[in-house]
Amino acid sequence: MAAPLEFYFDFGSPYGYIGAQRIEALASKHGRKVDWRPMLLGAVFKSEGTQPLVQYPMKGKYSTHDFNRSAREHGIAFTMPTKFPLATIAACRGTYWLKATDPDKSVPFIKAVYAAYFVEDRDISSAEVLAEIAARLGVDSKAFLAGIEQPEIKARLREVTEDAIQQRGVFGSPFTFVDGEPFWGADRIDQIDRWLSRGGW
Amino acid sequence: MAAPLEFYFDFGSPYGYIGAQRIEALASKHGRKVDWRPMLLGAVFKSEGTQPLVQYPMKGKYSTHDFNRSAREHGIAFTMPTKFPLATIAACRGTYWLKATDPDKSVPFIKAVYAAYFVEDRDISSAEVLAEIAARLGVDSKAFLAGIEQPEIKARLREVTEDAIQQRGVFGSPFTFVDGEPFWGADRIDQIDRWLSRGGW
Repeated sequence: MAAPLEFYFDFGSPYGYIGAQRIEALASKHGRKVDWRPMLLGAVFKSEGTQPLVQYPMKGKYSTHDFNRSAREHGIAFTMPTKFPLATIAACRGTYWLKATDPDKSVPFIKAVYAAYFVEDRDISSAEVLAEIAARLGVDSKAFLAGIEQPEIKARLREVTEDAIQQRGVFGSPFTFVDGEPFWGADRIDQIDRWLSRGGW
Repeated sequence: MAAPLEFYFDFGSPYGYIGAQRIEALASKHGRKVDWRPMLLGAVFKSEGTQPLVQYPMKGKYSTHDFNRSAREHGIAFTMPTKFPLATIAACRGTYWLKATDPDKSVPFIKAVYAAYFVEDRDISSAEVLAEIAARLGVDSKAFLAGIEQPEIKARLREVTEDAIQQRGVFGSPFTFVDGEPFWGADRIDQIDRWLSRGGW
């Protein structure tokens, strides 16, 4: 089987959320899997000298309009969250803890966290909210809350984020690698589709 | 006839160039014309607190790769110019002078200037180079060189640029308005196509 699409994203990123709703169907169309890699974009802004999208006056206004328009185009439910931006470190750690202990639940967890934030407008910076989301997937809440505090889980997230930025040049969300070829943005999903169909160009 | 697509661009912008190679076919497919509006992105960077794309370490590297890849996908000739970025004020003024005095030559001039820069690697910041390009279209070089110095032409460019930024929220190149709806980027040409086909969504 061909290599999975490596899908880097930040849980707080509207375009990450929109891309996440489309990436699996795309991968599956081309006989691929998705390797989901949540990371912390905050570290990118620092090293790149940029800010979150919505903090630029004009680009921010456009993006907010475009989040909704892009979601509507593909029939994706989307609500701009009340608390935005927010810390996504616990959501990332929760994903890596599940990947290590109960891997089949990590992707459902990612999807449920994204839906909680961008559809249900819940505060996904809260460990308790995340534990409740995990509990709905049959994960023990206490184990989850202890898991996201484990040093090796914290280290894993640091490692993924550092590697993404320093080794792979990831500077935005979502950021997808197809056999090493980088594609930035939810609006490149169709281009990835053409890339896979044509075998590159 | 429906309103033209308003296509804002900077002559120094690789994505502006790539979008410019596709916008007319798109417009024509939907029974539209293109209103070509060169402007100065430098003014945007100041008001938005951003920098030219290639000056960001990671985003710059990605973009340079993506300029070539995007051009290749659509069979568009593209060479990263030796002198980059450069001043595009004379090219903008030349366009607005032609629009005022010999309008049928303004679009051929735009295309020839873009090709000179991104295919032939010429220095389009030079008024003499631009006059030579205009001459090939049958425009008198002396008249051209005098025309781009006219106060009303300088004022026209300031006006278009200020209006674009302050009234219309243009912060990048290319930036296309379809009946008032804004689309940022050469990679949104296909989305504009779908927007026009569906009548929006």
